Amino acid sequence: MREHLTFPLGDFTTQHGATLRGAHLAYTTYGELNAAKSNVIVYPTWYSGRHWDNEWLIGSGMALDPDEYFIIVPNMLGNGLSSSPSNTPPPYDRARFPRITVYDQIEAQHKLVTEEFGIERIALVTGWSMGAGQTFQWAVSYPEMVERIAPFCGSPRTSLHNKVFLEGVKAALTADAVFNGGWYDEGKWPTTGLRALARVYAGWGFSQAFYWEKEYEKLGYTSLEDFLVGFWEGFFLDGRDPNNLLSMLWTWQNGDIGLTPGFDGNTEAALGSIKATTLDMPAEKDLYFPPEDEAWAVSHIPGAELRVIPGIWGHFAGGGSSPKDTEFIDTGIKELLAKPGGLA
Amino acid sequence: MREHLTFPLGDFTTQHGATLRGAHLAYTTYGELNAAKSNVIVYPTWYSGRHWDNEWLIGSGMALDPDEYFIIVPNMLGNGLSSSPSNTPPPYDRARFPRITVYDQIEAQHKLVTEEFGIERIALVTGWSMGAGQTFQWAVSYPEMVERIAPFCGSPRTSLHNKVFLEGVKAALTADAVFNGGWYDEGKWPTTGLRALARVYAGWGFSQAFYWEKEYEKLGYTSLEDFLVGFWEGFFLDGRDPNNLLSMLWTWQNGDIGLTPGFDGNTEAALGSIKATTLDMPAEKDLYFPPEDEAWAVSHIPGAELRVIPGIWGHFAGGGSSPKDTEFIDTGIKELLAKPGGLA
Repeated sequence: MREHLTFPLGDFTTQHGATLRGAHLAYTTYGELNAAKSNVIVYPTWYSGRHWDNEWLIGSGMALDPDEYFIIVPNMLGNGLSSSPSNTPPPYDRARFPRITVYDQIEAQHKLVTEEFGIERIALVTGWSMGAGQTFQWAVSYPEMVERIAPFCGSPRTSLHNKVFLEGVKAALTADAVFNGGWYDEGKWPTTGLRALARVYAGWGFSQAFYWEKEYEKLGYTSLEDFLVGFWEGFFLDGRDPNNLLSMLWTWQNGDIGLTPGFDGNTEAALGSIKATTLDMPAEKDLYFPPEDEAWAVSHIPGAELRVIPGIWGHFAGGGSSPKDTEFIDTGIKELLAKPGGLA
Repeated sequence: MREHLTFPLGDFTTQHGATLRGAHLAYTTYGELNAAKSNVIVYPTWYSGRHWDNEWLIGSGMALDPDEYFIIVPNMLGNGLSSSPSNTPPPYDRARFPRITVYDQIEAQHKLVTEEFGIERIALVTGWSMGAGQTFQWAVSYPEMVERIAPFCGSPRTSLHNKVFLEGVKAALTADAVFNGGWYDEGKWPTTGLRALARVYAGWGFSQAFYWEKEYEKLGYTSLEDFLVGFWEGFFLDGRDPNNLLSMLWTWQNGDIGLTPGFDGNTEAALGSIKATTLDMPAEKDLYFPPEDEAWAVSHIPGAELRVIPGIWGHFAGGGSSPKDTEFIDTGIKELLAKPGGLA
C-alpha cells in the first residue's frame, strides 16, 4: 500500500457551517506534472475506499497512464486518511464530526490542486460510485477548469431509492448497541453491526445474475457463505471505522450537484451548466445506480454520452475485479481523452 | 379481521425430523364447497401475512369469486396463527421452534384439505411471494390433485441472490442485542432490530423507479421518511414476533421444490413433474424474484405460460395495493381458470 502525502487544509469551513480546524487531505500522485500543467487527472476515492484501492485503473498503456499523465488521487474526507471522525481531535471527533457534502469534498480537493500544484486546468476527472458523484461535482463547481469527466457507476444526485438502500445499511450497523451513538470504545468496535451491514450490502453490490451464475466462485470463494464472510464481512471489518462509514454515508445520501451554491436545489440546471466533455458509464445491472437514472442525467448535460457497461457484475463492474469491465471502462476513458475537452 | 378456524394437525413430524406435538393450522374459507367438491381454490399466505391479508384478491366478480369457488386460505406455519414460535408450548417454543420446509407447509395443508373437507381435486392453487413458493410445492407434492397453478411474484426455488437479500434482513434484526438469540422477554421485543429490518426491507420491496416516481405519495405518505416509518416500520412492528419472522425466513431461504422427497435436489426434474396448467406471473421490476428466474422455471414446466406483470411496483405488484397490478393478476387467473386443468 502506497504511502500518502498530506495537504494541510487549515481551518476548513463546511457548507453546513462547521469549521474543522487544522483539517487535512491525504492524497497521492502518479506520474509527473508537465511544464504546461496540462496533463492532470483527478481521480477521487469511493465509499470507504483508500487511494490504493484506485490503482487498478492506473498503469502504463492504460488510459490513466502515469507515463503521460499526472494523476492525483485525493482521499475523501471521512475515509480515515483525510480528516475523518477517527482521526480528528476533540471536539469535532467521532460522532461529532461535521456533516461533509460532496461540494465540501471538491472544495478541499480544489485547494489541493490549485494551492499545492498551481494547476488551472484538469484534463479529466473520473471516479467510481461516490467517486463518480465527486466527478460530477468537480464539473459543476469548477466548469472553467474541468475539460472532461468520466463518472462510472455513480450519479450526480443520490436517488431516493439509493437513499433507502443506505438507510438499510445504516440501520443494520447502528442496531448494534455497542455502537452507542458513535461513542464506542476504541478497543471495542460494534463488529456485530459491521457484519450485519456487510450482509445487507452483499445483496446490493452485485446483481441477481451475478449470484445466479455463482460468479463469486471465479474469485476464489468456495460457497455463498464463504463469499458473505470472506469477501463482505472481511471487507467491512478491515479497519473501516464505523463513524467514518457513517460520515461518508451521510455525504452519499445527501449528494446532489443541485445543492451547489447558486443552483438553489435545481439539479437539472446544475447538469446543464456542465461544460466538460462527458462520458457517463453506468453498469447495466447496477442495483443502486441504475442506468436509467444516468440516461436522465445525460439528457441534461450538453453533448454528453451515455455508455452502459454490459454484464452481470452490477455496481462492482466499476470496482476493478472484473477484467472485461475494467477494459470497457479503460477503453471509454481512452476515447474520451482523445476527444477535445469541453473548454477547447 | 376475519376470525380463523383451527385444524388440529396432531403430532406433526417435519421433513427435518422434529415432531410438533399438538400442532395446528389456522385457516379460513370463503364461499361454499359444491357437492362434487370440484370448485376448490387454495390460496396460501406470504411472508408474515395472515389470512386476512389475502382478501384483496377475493370478491364477487373477481377470479377468486366466493359465489363460485370454495376458497381455502391456510396460514403458513410460523406466521403466528398456525403453529409458530410464538404460540408453541415448551420445549419447541420460541428459538427452539423446528425448521419448517415449504414441503412441510404443503403436507400440513394437504391434511387440512383432505381430512377436514374430503377434497381430492383442487381447481387452482395461487399465491404471492412465499405463497407462490407454496403454490409450486403443491403442484410437485400432489401432481394428481392440482389442476392449475398461478404463482405470482415468487419462485419454485429461492435463488442465491434472494438468500443474500434475506441474510441482510436477518442480520439487521439479530444485530439488536435485545433479540438475545430469540430468548427476548415477551414484554421486551427487539424493536431497534425490527426497525432496522424494516429499513433493509424497504429498499427491496419496491423498485428503484417506484421511489424515483415517489409513488408512495399516492399511498398517502408525505415524505420518504414518512414512508419508511409509517409504512415499513409500522408494518414490522404490527405484532410480528421476531422468532416467527425468522422461522418463516428460514422456510423462505430454504425453499426448493427439488428438495421434495424423490427428486434428490433436482429442481429441474421437479419442475418437469408438474402436471397442473401453469401461469407464472413475476413482476417486471421485482428485485428479489426477477422475471428472468421465472423464465427459467417456466422453460422446465410442460406447457407453462410466463406472463410478466408490467410496471414499477416491483415485488409489491402482488401485494394488493396497486389497482392496475391487481387487475392484471386477476385477469390472468380468470383466463387460467377458463382453461382445461392439466389433469383433464
